Amino acid sequence: MPSCVLAYSGGLDTSVILLWLQEQGYDVHAVYVDLGQPCEDRAAILEKAHTGGAVSAQIVDVQEELCRDFAFPVLQWQAKYESIYLLGTSIARPLISKVCLQIAREVGADAYVHGATGKGNDQCRFQLAAEALDPQVQVVAPWRMESFRSQFPGRTEMIDYCREKNIPVKATAAKPYSSDENCLHISYEAGRLEDLDVNGVGVVDFGMTVSPQAAPDEVEQVTISFESGMPVAVNNKQLPALGIVQTLNEIGGRNGVGRIDMVENRFVGMKSRGVYEAPGMTLLYETHMVLEQLTVDRELMHLRSRLAPEVAELVYYGFWYSPKFDALLAFNREAQSR
Amino acid sequence: MPSCVLAYSGGLDTSVILLWLQEQGYDVHAVYVDLGQPCEDRAAILEKAHTGGAVSAQIVDVQEELCRDFAFPVLQWQAKYESIYLLGTSIARPLISKVCLQIAREVGADAYVHGATGKGNDQCRFQLAAEALDPQVQVVAPWRMESFRSQFPGRTEMIDYCREKNIPVKATAAKPYSSDENCLHISYEAGRLEDLDVNGVGVVDFGMTVSPQAAPDEVEQVTISFESGMPVAVNNKQLPALGIVQTLNEIGGRNGVGRIDMVENRFVGMKSRGVYEAPGMTLLYETHMVLEQLTVDRELMHLRSRLAPEVAELVYYGFWYSPKFDALLAFNREAQSR
Amino acid sequence: MPSCVLAYSGGLDTSVILLWLQEQGYDVHAVYVDLGQPCEDRAAILEKAHTGGAVSAQIVDVQEELCRDFAFPVLQWQAKYESIYLLGTSIARPLISKVCLQIAREVGADAYVHGATGKGNDQCRFQLAAEALDPQVQVVAPWRMESFRSQFPGRTEMIDYCREKNIPVKATAAKPYSSDENCLHISYEAGRLEDLDVNGVGVVDFGMTVSPQAAPDEVEQVTISFESGMPVAVNNKQLPALGIVQTLNEIGGRNGVGRIDMVENRFVGMKSRGVYEAPGMTLLYETHMVLEQLTVDRELMHLRSRLAPEVAELVYYGFWYSPKFDALLAFNREAQSR
Amino acid sequence: MPSCVLAYSGGLDTSVILLWLQEQGYDVHAVYVDLGQPCEDRAAILEKAHTGGAVSAQIVDVQEELCRDFAFPVLQWQAKYESIYLLGTSIARPLISKVCLQIAREVGADAYVHGATGKGNDQCRFQLAAEALDPQVQVVAPWRMESFRSQFPGRTEMIDYCREKNIPVKATAAKPYSSDENCLHISYEAGRLEDLDVNGVGVVDFGMTVSPQAAPDEVEQVTISFESGMPVAVNNKQLPALGIVQTLNEIGGRNGVGRIDMVENRFVGMKSRGVYEAPGMTLLYETHMVLEQLTVDRELMHLRSRLAPEVAELVYYGFWYSPKFDALLAFNREAQSR
Repeated sequence: MPSCVLAYSGGLDTSVILLWLQEQGYDVHAVYVDLGQPCEDRAAILEKAHTGGAVSAQIVDVQEELCRDFAFPVLQWQAKYESIYLLGTSIARPLISKVCLQIAREVGADAYVHGATGKGNDQCRFQLAAEALDPQVQVVAPWRMESFRSQFPGRTEMIDYCREKNIPVKATAAKPYSSDENCLHISYEAGRLEDLDVNGVGVVDFGMTVSPQAAPDEVEQVTISFESGMPVAVNNKQLPALGIVQTLNEIGGRNGVGRIDMVENRFVGMKSRGVYEAPGMTLLYETHMVLEQLTVDRELMHLRSRLAPEVAELVYYGFWYSPKFDALLAFNREAQSR
Repeated sequence: MPSCVLAYSGGLDTSVILLWLQEQGYDVHAVYVDLGQPCEDRAAILEKAHTGGAVSAQIVDVQEELCRDFAFPVLQWQAKYESIYLLGTSIARPLISKVCLQIAREVGADAYVHGATGKGNDQCRFQLAAEALDPQVQVVAPWRMESFRSQFPGRTEMIDYCREKNIPVKATAAKPYSSDENCLHISYEAGRLEDLDVNGVGVVDFGMTVSPQAAPDEVEQVTISFESGMPVAVNNKQLPALGIVQTLNEIGGRNGVGRIDMVENRFVGMKSRGVYEAPGMTLLYETHMVLEQLTVDRELMHLRSRLAPEVAELVYYGFWYSPKFDALLAFNREAQSR
Repeated sequence: MPSCVLAYSGGLDTSVILLWLQEQGYDVHAVYVDLGQPCEDRAAILEKAHTGGAVSAQIVDVQEELCRDFAFPVLQWQAKYESIYLLGTSIARPLISKVCLQIAREVGADAYVHGATGKGNDQCRFQLAAEALDPQVQVVAPWRMESFRSQFPGRTEMIDYCREKNIPVKATAAKPYSSDENCLHISYEAGRLEDLDVNGVGVVDFGMTVSPQAAPDEVEQVTISFESGMPVAVNNKQLPALGIVQTLNEIGGRNGVGRIDMVENRFVGMKSRGVYEAPGMTLLYETHMVLEQLTVDRELMHLRSRLAPEVAELVYYGFWYSPKFDALLAFNREAQSR
Repeated sequence: MPSCVLAYSGGLDTSVILLWLQEQGYDVHAVYVDLGQPCEDRAAILEKAHTGGAVSAQIVDVQEELCRDFAFPVLQWQAKYESIYLLGTSIARPLISKVCLQIAREVGADAYVHGATGKGNDQCRFQLAAEALDPQVQVVAPWRMESFRSQFPGRTEMIDYCREKNIPVKATAAKPYSSDENCLHISYEAGRLEDLDVNGVGVVDFGMTVSPQAAPDEVEQVTISFESGMPVAVNNKQLPALGIVQTLNEIGGRNGVGRIDMVENRFVGMKSRGVYEAPGMTLLYETHMVLEQLTVDRELMHLRSRLAPEVAELVYYGFWYSPKFDALLAFNREAQSR
């Protein structure tokens, strides 16, 4: 019987996919890659996976790696997609593929399954990362399969399907938009945000930040320390990468730092409205820029500024694991070392 | 007797230069290029020039041209020097040279004289623009001449010199930094700002903006209209370029928009601390960006983002009149026309 | 009954497609876009189209336009794909789409049909140009359709099909590679050239050039005149664009100029061996470069050199009609005007 | 008494400078950096330096380092200045500065003296490299000093000066141009070559290559082996970097490979005619390009092509030792490692 690793979130989509994969004849290994997304308790997630029929289920916490090895090199490039987006979701996708492929090798799975939809960027990022890491990989993306989509045309069918299979589904109130959260940021898109007449930052119920208007009318001082361009401490307290981001999320969040509202060009060609908040990373970008103003050679900095949009494009499109991105990383490692 | 056109501001430096040029044997035509800098009444300036011995004196108001033909094309490039500086001073320099050279042709002057100092960017911008517009031009820059500098080692000697010559000098209190203002922005540098431990935005007495903390805790809505990428109206009122900038300076200013504090790389090689406020132009950059998010082709936008730092560099360094800049302007005229 | 315009060459593939389209229920308008490809007499082509059932058939000679409006702007960019390929085939494709769409409008056709295969670059170039010129266009590419491919798995089935339909097919000896010729160049690929151990220039039977070894051991002088970067005369004889290319093809050809042998990266992702000869265009690239060495501003030239690979990429991929390419053309029109 | 290291060639200019420096009060350490330039026997050079009053004299052979660490990284970038010049002279200058500064440290010298003229590129390259390697370095460039130039307005005065000082000067016939040779190439410029009506390759008496017309009318096969983008063998014979270049100089030279004739933009702003021959390096560029066609990722290659002109510019201008160039080297080391 073929087996697969499923990038499992415990939400409705991947719960349905977990059941459906078994109908397709797969043994399913559920992997919850912990990026700092808001979640029920971990025991509940694992139990839900087992109840859903997973032959194995595990949680892999990669938050530190996400900050240190994924977000920080992008920060060091001062890379922002289309001038302003800090790439909080884009950065996380290759890491999910990397973790799932590692586990696929360990458990001897034949395929890697993800629940990304067919019009978004994430399907590309998952797939491109997986194929780069293992050109032989078999990627199963149910939402890109006609048969799956016709079986589940809407949320109702998915809920009914779970109930049939005795999988508990939480009745959640319909949200006016969808969101994606990890330790780096929260993104908001779709729903009411697709109406351009709607003020994005007015509609969204932000999770990490207060509004600039609600922020205190006084300055809060924060000291961020860098070594070779890498953040190492906040207010003189040495912290791991995740600790730095979390601490700055709080500080930036309470001061109304790091919200944007934009229309961006997706990899797949369409334009899409996105609202983002990334308080900690915004503070890191700003302070890293100041650091570089003081320390970096002018010619090097100017070339880097011309290349940064290309780095952001690679990350946004999903070419994290690619020869071009590797060479660009090597370029900036040298630049940051000075 | 040789004659020259002096870019005259009515301040201490150009008052001294006006006198000194006559000692060197020049007939001096004083030209006050009005960029919206704060000034005494115009009659007073003209009279001061005549009192100082100018054979002719005139004021040329180029504010509309500055906004429309200089600031707006740079805005349309989304060009910011070293990621954040909106180039408010850099943009104005080539225009001053252009005006002075025009008048030099009209009055048959042999030389063009400016009062820029020898360590700054402006000397280069004045000179490069002048040489580009007229390769045969003779540029006299007293502050780059050893003899002038040794005659006027400090402010005291300059004041004494004016008094000797019966030119009235206002006793002004020493300022903790120097500033340059035009209708686009105010820049602050030198003095106390050279100490990096000083909080730039804390020290500066801003002229156009309140601080974000002092700004009202409520949102003010403003509607800016563009045609082919060019701002044409504010709150549905059609305005000339200058009117748009002035109106937005007020709106942005009272809402705490558009202050930055940076260390920048000068053309001449040194790093320099600069604090800037540009409320109107900041609003225009932001809204133009949103406009482009909705209307511009992705590939074109991404290429433009890679070229924008180079455009900013050209403007900052002073290569306004250059084949490379002309080609880049043509590129973006095509891009904006869509 | 729906109707279509078929980009018709009179060869086996488009003869089959002409018949097949009628079986699909189309009225077919055959359009032979004359790019200078070697062909039987024109009357024969038109007759063959009529015999094959075309409701109309015409020949449109666009050689002058191909040279003047397509090849020369690319030449002025000094654009070479992957450093050496002069883009002779790539340049012609958008023009074919343009002509066919014009005729489609005239005859009121519903679709545009081309015979490009499914692994090559040309399918993309035809399609991208057509969609850019008319976003509503319906493009039919039989070789990209599973049903067509299974009906015609090989050359034999295609010949049989034609014979069944009483369409004469010339028995041609199998060639060791395929070629594509127009007035700009000849390309050779596939077949024996796919073996990297084969010396490409040794295997190919070149149509336009002698080998450097066979070329005369003496220098032939040729004078090429340019106006604003545009070639206008050869040996002091004013000629239209096509005349210039043809004359230089002869001169370059007899002197062994303009052969290359490379492995290139196709738009669709695979690497592909290509051998090319373009004697006239090679002479034009070299002399235009010398012209620019003497006349173009250094900074402009250096920027252009950094952008030229991107221009070549756009042309090779098929983005002739695109906002990005338009802006780059505007850039260089300005640059060449000096 | 202050001491200096003189980059000494044994020719007329540096012989004069050697004497002149002693008149200025310097102890002079003569260093002949052997780059493969054509020279009299080494003993004669050392003796000439001693006769001229040098307190020490030595020859440092850096040909292997020049090829391996300077020419090959530039080759791996496929960097050519203004599209065609392989940078054979530019590459060597930073290495001369490096060697002289090393010796200056060893002998405790206070200054570094070179004999480059005041209108050329080399003065910049020597100086920029020296200042980058040691920001405190004192560089003495007699040809940039008014007093030196007025003492030696022409060749006659230099010869007379040497004779006065009893330094033997070879009476050499006036050459119609000047040349610079090292193991990588020979460059020819000035004199008759400044007349654009002169056919450069017709006038020059080439030292390394026959003309294409004089080359044999048959193909010579040569096999060049690369490891990680680095040439390691010729015709299956492992060779050090210098051996590879020398062997290929012979092979390319007898086959008429590697001559160019161009007008280039100097760093100092003027345009200058140059004729070059670099048979071995030309073969290496061509074969390395073919190697990359087969092995390098498309996106990486395309980005590299856009950056290569900038790398060539840095090398040509003399910014070998600079943060920007270091980062670009790191980029390509990563790219070549694949």
